[in-house]
Amino acid sequence: MAQTRSDTAEALEAFYREIEDQSMDALWRRHQQGDRPSDPAAPYGPYHWNGADILRFMARAGELVQPGPDAQRRVLILSNPGVRPAKSATHTLSGNVQMVLPGEIAPSHRHTNAAIRFIMKGEGAVTIVDGEPVEMRPGDLVLTPGWCYHGHVSKAAEPVLWMDSLDGPLVVGMLRIARYQQYPDELEPATKPVGASFTEYGHGNFRPMWKKEASKISPQLLYPWTQTERALQELARTDASPFDDVAFEYTNPTTGGPVLPTIGCTIQMIRPGVHTRAHRHSACAVYHVFRGEGYSVIDGVRFDWKAGDFFSLPPWAWHEHANTSTTEEAIIFATTDAPVLDALSLLEEEEYLGAGGHQAVTSSFGD
Amino acid sequence: MAQTRSDTAEALEAFYREIEDQSMDALWRRHQQGDRPSDPAAPYGPYHWNGADILRFMARAGELVQPGPDAQRRVLILSNPGVRPAKSATHTLSGNVQMVLPGEIAPSHRHTNAAIRFIMKGEGAVTIVDGEPVEMRPGDLVLTPGWCYHGHVSKAAEPVLWMDSLDGPLVVGMLRIARYQQYPDELEPATKPVGASFTEYGHGNFRPMWKKEASKISPQLLYPWTQTERALQELARTDASPFDDVAFEYTNPTTGGPVLPTIGCTIQMIRPGVHTRAHRHSACAVYHVFRGEGYSVIDGVRFDWKAGDFFSLPPWAWHEHANTSTTEEAIIFATTDAPVLDALSLLEEEEYLGAGGHQAVTSSFGD
Amino acid sequence: MAQTRSDTAEALEAFYREIEDQSMDALWRRHQQGDRPSDPAAPYGPYHWNGADILRFMARAGELVQPGPDAQRRVLILSNPGVRPAKSATHTLSGNVQMVLPGEIAPSHRHTNAAIRFIMKGEGAVTIVDGEPVEMRPGDLVLTPGWCYHGHVSKAAEPVLWMDSLDGPLVVGMLRIARYQQYPDELEPATKPVGASFTEYGHGNFRPMWKKEASKISPQLLYPWTQTERALQELARTDASPFDDVAFEYTNPTTGGPVLPTIGCTIQMIRPGVHTRAHRHSACAVYHVFRGEGYSVIDGVRFDWKAGDFFSLPPWAWHEHANTSTTEEAIIFATTDAPVLDALSLLEEEEYLGAGGHQAVTSSFGD
Amino acid sequence: MAQTRSDTAEALEAFYREIEDQSMDALWRRHQQGDRPSDPAAPYGPYHWNGADILRFMARAGELVQPGPDAQRRVLILSNPGVRPAKSATHTLSGNVQMVLPGEIAPSHRHTNAAIRFIMKGEGAVTIVDGEPVEMRPGDLVLTPGWCYHGHVSKAAEPVLWMDSLDGPLVVGMLRIARYQQYPDELEPATKPVGASFTEYGHGNFRPMWKKEASKISPQLLYPWTQTERALQELARTDASPFDDVAFEYTNPTTGGPVLPTIGCTIQMIRPGVHTRAHRHSACAVYHVFRGEGYSVIDGVRFDWKAGDFFSLPPWAWHEHANTSTTEEAIIFATTDAPVLDALSLLEEEEYLGAGGHQAVTSSFGD
Repeated sequence: MAQTRSDTAEALEAFYREIEDQSMDALWRRHQQGDRPSDPAAPYGPYHWNGADILRFMARAGELVQPGPDAQRRVLILSNPGVRPAKSATHTLSGNVQMVLPGEIAPSHRHTNAAIRFIMKGEGAVTIVDGEPVEMRPGDLVLTPGWCYHGHVSKAAEPVLWMDSLDGPLVVGMLRIARYQQYPDELEPATKPVGASFTEYGHGNFRPMWKKEASKISPQLLYPWTQTERALQELARTDASPFDDVAFEYTNPTTGGPVLPTIGCTIQMIRPGVHTRAHRHSACAVYHVFRGEGYSVIDGVRFDWKAGDFFSLPPWAWHEHANTSTTEEAIIFATTDAPVLDALSLLEEEEYLGAGGHQAVTSSFGD
Repeated sequence: MAQTRSDTAEALEAFYREIEDQSMDALWRRHQQGDRPSDPAAPYGPYHWNGADILRFMARAGELVQPGPDAQRRVLILSNPGVRPAKSATHTLSGNVQMVLPGEIAPSHRHTNAAIRFIMKGEGAVTIVDGEPVEMRPGDLVLTPGWCYHGHVSKAAEPVLWMDSLDGPLVVGMLRIARYQQYPDELEPATKPVGASFTEYGHGNFRPMWKKEASKISPQLLYPWTQTERALQELARTDASPFDDVAFEYTNPTTGGPVLPTIGCTIQMIRPGVHTRAHRHSACAVYHVFRGEGYSVIDGVRFDWKAGDFFSLPPWAWHEHANTSTTEEAIIFATTDAPVLDALSLLEEEEYLGAGGHQAVTSSFGD
Repeated sequence: MAQTRSDTAEALEAFYREIEDQSMDALWRRHQQGDRPSDPAAPYGPYHWNGADILRFMARAGELVQPGPDAQRRVLILSNPGVRPAKSATHTLSGNVQMVLPGEIAPSHRHTNAAIRFIMKGEGAVTIVDGEPVEMRPGDLVLTPGWCYHGHVSKAAEPVLWMDSLDGPLVVGMLRIARYQQYPDELEPATKPVGASFTEYGHGNFRPMWKKEASKISPQLLYPWTQTERALQELARTDASPFDDVAFEYTNPTTGGPVLPTIGCTIQMIRPGVHTRAHRHSACAVYHVFRGEGYSVIDGVRFDWKAGDFFSLPPWAWHEHANTSTTEEAIIFATTDAPVLDALSLLEEEEYLGAGGHQAVTSSFGD
Repeated sequence: MAQTRSDTAEALEAFYREIEDQSMDALWRRHQQGDRPSDPAAPYGPYHWNGADILRFMARAGELVQPGPDAQRRVLILSNPGVRPAKSATHTLSGNVQMVLPGEIAPSHRHTNAAIRFIMKGEGAVTIVDGEPVEMRPGDLVLTPGWCYHGHVSKAAEPVLWMDSLDGPLVVGMLRIARYQQYPDELEPATKPVGASFTEYGHGNFRPMWKKEASKISPQLLYPWTQTERALQELARTDASPFDDVAFEYTNPTTGGPVLPTIGCTIQMIRPGVHTRAHRHSACAVYHVFRGEGYSVIDGVRFDWKAGDFFSLPPWAWHEHANTSTTEEAIIFATTDAPVLDALSLLEEEEYLGAGGHQAVTSSFGD
């Protein structure tokens, strides 16, 4: 409440009605002391989705709906209850799952929001991105930057599933950059060699001599799992992060920075028995467990996970990861809005200073 | 509607209930064809606020409320009805008006959202930003970057009013970076010379030899009107934009880029009789008419304005400006989220190709 | 000498003759221990030129030679005896003096090397740079970037003299980028308003809204003394460097960096009675004393100077400056190759840690 | 000759003597019309060194001299007769050959100039760079950035030879940044895992999550041939340059730019029967033929080459390459100063527009 010179709240209320009539409001009645804490805190809760549920629902969706002119995509949205009205995994990023069945085509279209695909299961699907056919195998990362045509087609003998993570909550939902265009035909034809951009940039730190421009959007559209896995195995022999264990960010070969200005991608291997120290940051993340099993503690709540699961991390939530196997590695892929915050000078990070770097666990998710 | 393999919509509805129970949703039922157009379009309407109303309301607010521990700031919010639930001038930027009366102190605090102040009326107030006292005169631009302490104090003989434009809708409302801290005392004391940062960077394109770092946040906190006015008058002799007439963006001296990563500031002089050509862009803007009178046509609607008025421009709305005086210049200050879009590779611009570059006027705002 | 397996130096000599016949050499006979010290050291000596000599010689040159098709420019070269074979003030930068007499024209030409001009004396000359007429007054800095046409014309009633500092020793002499072209006519005509680039960028930290590109070469061609002097006077109230006192680097408004990628420009005001602390760096400099008198100590040698004098600083020489007047300021302009070294990650600096930050003076230059 | 007002050359000569006494010179007597052409031209000639000669001389050097405290390195300098006094392959880059014999140690030292090594023959040597052991195999590229300790040791059963290309002519010879330091012991011990920096950055476009800084100096010290060869083979299926055929620049993973600010490295595969079109640029290059045979035409002169040979390209010389085999690929590694010129806005390129893009051959080198 304001220090009023008038002794009547009535006069204030009359004033509020009058200014509202002119599409104004009074700042002092909107912010109450304590609205915004001085210490950072997660604005909403983390969430976890069970991989078995996803597979079951997707099998059912395979019977109920098919990609095409109407449905476009057979996609399940992971809708964090704390993120409203957006219905997405975090406030800036979606974490969805898509499936194409043998012989299906998800028609080519383009939109202002950008996406990454991380292949979960199945081999034999292809995404055509602005004329470049990109083959998809489990563990591969495929980029479909904003306003690039992309369609999917499966010649597989089995269902192919992947994680779709888009910047739609930010770009369409918040920034209101919302355009969409269907490709004139069902599937954009291939006009470039298969995997051309990986060929140009992917076989090491090289730049084709005639490619002189740097771009905030990675020209390399495929980051294949064979390479990612080898990189993790090799890095494990050398060094690791106390917070993320053996962990990489995928990079844009023309800048060394994030693959997209709106979506960062990371891959981490929690080695058998490793329990990382906790930290937090202003960036959020959508995690997909690609291999192994373990748990994460997020703001004091334990989230058990195994291969196929997803979980989402809100900004500023303390988090640490543990691999509960003593023999198998756990591999976790994630998308993050860290590139956005970094571009706006809003990226901050803080180490957890409690005993041993570990939070006290107060409950388990789902209990 | 999806192409369903099942012949019953009932099965689909059962499916939707089941996945919702597990915090999932189906993408195909959320997006209908035509949700997002292929051509860009303004996602909400422009709006106009009358300067006389603002002054009248502010005079009343001066009687009803005073800055201090409870009210913090005597600020009127310009609340575009098309921007909900944010209650702000555009979806990413607020356009507010603040007043301090003679002898008043608006206590020092800091928050993660950044602000700019453009002084509308009154001389004799001072803003202290992280220990640097910045004097405020009509037409001056003053920056208070995110998480910098800032308090205002007036030694003026008259009310001092300024435009407050903050990135709060983006930073707090969307990105959820929300921290706030009151300064321990009422007013942070001055620990630096008056206008020190303007002294270091403002007197031309020079860099103090011991200031070697570049930052996305301008170290220069004051852009005084005397300088801005001279710059406009000089530029008018040389060149102008077909869309904005004689127009500058204020720059960060360490980068040549925008003053803040989240807020760009521009000043334009529409010369007597000039009517600019229309264009549109993915960035929005909050305009304040500092001097003169004229009108803007935004998506076919005519908005008449005069000194003291505000109007807001949504993304992708066609807009053109006209000075209706044949003798007096019109000066318009604006804030824009163009730096945000540029950092994310989302900034686009398009020229209006209709006859003469002018839109057909279909109505006038307020009719 | 190498550890030879052979017991005869004769075999080695025969070997050397044989490889020389095939345009090869042996590295081990070129580098002797101690060729290159582990501590940095100045590779050649500093030097000082008397302003009175320069004026006297220039008056004589005014009688002996005139600018035109043959002589092109009436320019005296300051030829540091330690810099051979380049004949220039430092190994990377020339420090020359040019004079135009009333009515004279120094014809328009262009070359790959870039230049800056700092006006020493006389008012009423104009340099036309790629069609933009730039007026020259004492204390002004004028840029003529590489491969821009530039010609000088004087409508003054008095001789006009200025410092010419070029990157020719680096660009032409070392990097061998040597092209030169005479303008078809004697003087390139003015095609832009007088001082257009200063109008666009010079009146504060503003960017014309339609100028969106950043360039390593400053688009602002004039930095007028009226502005520089005010900037120095203002900065003096706020802060200063222990090594350079009140000192600025002129900046490129589109980047905040140096005005040219090959030449940095600085201006410093040594206040009455101030004696700076010593430091050294890998960059060299050519100094011109614009006002006042005092001395510098460079690697232990005292160089007394007064207005009109020049002196050159080699890389890694310790240096400190003193104003011997108790009432008048000393103003020193300088060019430096620091931008080149910085671009190549070779710029280093070191503070002198001796007593009081001052070197012991072992001799005076010229004794 | 100048247009003299005096009728006597004698007066001028007296003047010249007088100003020389004061360490000045007259610009107008130094530049004669035509000194510098308006069209770019090579400032010195290209040159070619025979690989068989190099092997023969190196075998002899193996008998005559050994690395150690005195000789430091068994290195043959390729001394282009057109580059004087520098005695190097081009004016900015050296192109040398080093050999270590089984069991030898080339002691650890560091210097301000940076180097790259391209392994020509022999397997089993290791370079230790600031504590990181880097294994060397034929075709590998190894970086030893400026002021990093580096020593070589061979556990091979055969001689190991590599190309040494340093920026010494630029950094030490021109810019005079000349420091040198012997490591206290003979060989700096390994303090990091073997190939640690390749492990961190080399297995694809990934960044260890805890490595947040970008640097102009690549942190990746090894670019192994196995990877380079695969990249070339893959690229060959997709695209090629008309001037360089299948060609990459090695990149710095933290920036996407050159591996060192002073030395760019390229690898090109001229496919069987390919004859590239000619172009020229302001950058120079030192070429080493790693595999195959063919010829290059440089400014009209034909240079035949085969595996083991070297040749150097001066700035602005027209050049084109031909593989004379119809079955075998030719692989050419090169170093270039293009990064230096690019950093200074001096990098230019021009396509040869003559018939078919090929120069007329006027002679053969060595005839």
